Amino acid sequence: MIKNYLSHTTQVMKSSLIRELVAATKNVPGLISFAGGFPSPATFPKEILSKLYAEVLTDEGRDVLQYGASEGDSQLKSELLKWEGYDYLTQDNLVATVGATNAIYYMTRALIDEGDVILCEAPSFLGSLVVFDALQADVQGIPMDADGIDLNRMVEKVKQIRESGKTIKFLYTIPDFQNPAGISMSLKRRRELLKYCEAEGLLVMEDNPYSRLRFSGEELPTLFRIAREEMKNTYLVTEIISFSKILGPGMRVAYAKGDESLIGKMVSWQQKVNVSPDCVTERVVAKFLAGGYMNPHIQSICEFYKPYLAKMLDTLSATMPAYVQWTKPNGGIFLWLWLPEDINADKLFFQAKDHLVAFIPGSKFYPEGQEKFNCLRLNYTYSTLEQIETGIGRLANLIKTIYA
Amino acid sequence: MIKNYLSHTTQVMKSSLIRELVAATKNVPGLISFAGGFPSPATFPKEILSKLYAEVLTDEGRDVLQYGASEGDSQLKSELLKWEGYDYLTQDNLVATVGATNAIYYMTRALIDEGDVILCEAPSFLGSLVVFDALQADVQGIPMDADGIDLNRMVEKVKQIRESGKTIKFLYTIPDFQNPAGISMSLKRRRELLKYCEAEGLLVMEDNPYSRLRFSGEELPTLFRIAREEMKNTYLVTEIISFSKILGPGMRVAYAKGDESLIGKMVSWQQKVNVSPDCVTERVVAKFLAGGYMNPHIQSICEFYKPYLAKMLDTLSATMPAYVQWTKPNGGIFLWLWLPEDINADKLFFQAKDHLVAFIPGSKFYPEGQEKFNCLRLNYTYSTLEQIETGIGRLANLIKTIYA
Repeated sequence: MIKNYLSHTTQVMKSSLIRELVAATKNVPGLISFAGGFPSPATFPKEILSKLYAEVLTDEGRDVLQYGASEGDSQLKSELLKWEGYDYLTQDNLVATVGATNAIYYMTRALIDEGDVILCEAPSFLGSLVVFDALQADVQGIPMDADGIDLNRMVEKVKQIRESGKTIKFLYTIPDFQNPAGISMSLKRRRELLKYCEAEGLLVMEDNPYSRLRFSGEELPTLFRIAREEMKNTYLVTEIISFSKILGPGMRVAYAKGDESLIGKMVSWQQKVNVSPDCVTERVVAKFLAGGYMNPHIQSICEFYKPYLAKMLDTLSATMPAYVQWTKPNGGIFLWLWLPEDINADKLFFQAKDHLVAFIPGSKFYPEGQEKFNCLRLNYTYSTLEQIETGIGRLANLIKTIYA
Repeated sequence: MIKNYLSHTTQVMKSSLIRELVAATKNVPGLISFAGGFPSPATFPKEILSKLYAEVLTDEGRDVLQYGASEGDSQLKSELLKWEGYDYLTQDNLVATVGATNAIYYMTRALIDEGDVILCEAPSFLGSLVVFDALQADVQGIPMDADGIDLNRMVEKVKQIRESGKTIKFLYTIPDFQNPAGISMSLKRRRELLKYCEAEGLLVMEDNPYSRLRFSGEELPTLFRIAREEMKNTYLVTEIISFSKILGPGMRVAYAKGDESLIGKMVSWQQKVNVSPDCVTERVVAKFLAGGYMNPHIQSICEFYKPYLAKMLDTLSATMPAYVQWTKPNGGIFLWLWLPEDINADKLFFQAKDHLVAFIPGSKFYPEGQEKFNCLRLNYTYSTLEQIETGIGRLANLIKTIYA
């Protein structure tokens, strides 16, 4: 009955395939899942947060329970600027949002007309792909090499898209510990990419949920920082920062940082979509930063996750046959596995379920019609060390049987 | 620079006129404002909330800090069904959202294609009008009488719109203590309206932020309840319930209640726009309901506001000239004032500012091109009793000088 009333966009909107896959692995006794993208609840600073929530309500309840600014809480934005050390930015360069997906939605809404092209890494974060799709963008994926997005392939792709008469609005990229591939873009590639985008008039949406989850190796400057500080370009890059992996995703606060003209348009959309993020939680995050809790907490998370990544990499090395390859990240929460071309991970998923181990088939992370099938994603932050050893062992045994 | 990249919708999007008006009255020493729509901070249950936030984090932190369901927290939805006493509904009939505007956005997004018509009361809630406008709906206002929306005028309007070949998707209505007019729809009108909408295939979005703020008179069944219980129609009405006026608008949690097919589509949009509401705040609202705090708290708010409404009505009676008329609500937070046809409240606003009193000119609450100018909105929940007496006195004196 309702179907006849639905808008066109809503009628054609796809449901999340990952949801269905994750649902398929629920309630299977003994199954070990590397499918989700959940942080470990052991990393949630619940005692500090309990104290801060109570204090904020008691001391500032009249303020935080009232309507808040669509721009985001001023105390929070002030603390964010201090935390990141951007003395040349003002509060007008920041908007707090209801999680990072919300910032991605606002920016896409502000820029995309039906059929406009968004470029992205292939594979890329499914949550963003479904947003782009729901807003009727034409999403075009570009392969990566070990240094990040393949710039030669990007140049070709841009030329080809423009010859077809289409408008390319922006590049969506996750330069640090990319989801799903676990690849980090090299400094050289970052600089080359930004020069190319500036020359071609392409904006950049830099999605940054993981850069602070670095367990080893040297921190690289964000695309945002390179554009501002080396290129003196204020509008080229908009960076979106999530607290989901460093505080807890249930607190729906994230922020975007960029040119004040674009941030202002995102604020206009926030006014219409949400009015503002949750003001209580915004203020608690401000206090968490002001209290100096953030950096020691991030360090403790990194120390917590490091052995899990090591265990997964060691077990893969010890068990997988030579024709399987995988990325070896220094942080983040995912890694990516390449299988021989004739193994289809969509089919492998169901066999793996019978062997009591789960992952997300790689094809789910590609724009529609551009899928690769001989790949899969593994998460290592939501299992015990023992589960990692057992689960990866099961997967390796299954893969070995295919050519047996 | 960014301007060239903006989507068409974003380029033509209007900023909130009320924002500019409210900004114009800021920092005017001694000015008394009846302009906002803010609840009194004295009504915020900050001590109970402080305790509940602390407990939720300590006892259930691992759960509420993790990713939550796009459908809304299951504990919250279970408590909502119990609170409202709907034993024939299930959790699939509810979606928790980031405030009521967010629910309005999702439902509109789910139903409206560019140019589709939304009917509404004229005047209506500006926050909804800007959402409808941003989503490119054609918004058509219908006048009200003392019993609510004028059904004869609605019948005419529907005929006229359909003759022009346009599609009408839904009626947006605030049946209880309407914002801005302070009118409540009579029971007879509710029944007639719903029968007409059902016969004509028009859906109804029932916006319900105020029905529980009733200080006197008999409670009327919601449109949702009439459709379900008297008409046995499951899809006709979707009701949107806000906690902004009964808990605090800084906690961004509201919910929509309707047919599971439409609720499911709203959930799909939530997944893409916000992933979920703030899970900590959702759970705190669940505990507030489970602890039995809600109903006594609502009663205390009603007792708190009642003298403010009485003071405003008494002062208006005592001071306004005979040619000024106003609504006399039994609750809510607004009332509406009609001036003689030749007095333009947009101009009066600036004179009033010089006389140190502020309101929102009525024209701001009409769809574009359909404005009335001889009317204004007054709020009585954000001033002291003394400010109400003084401020209304100032306004009355100013109005009297116009014909002097």
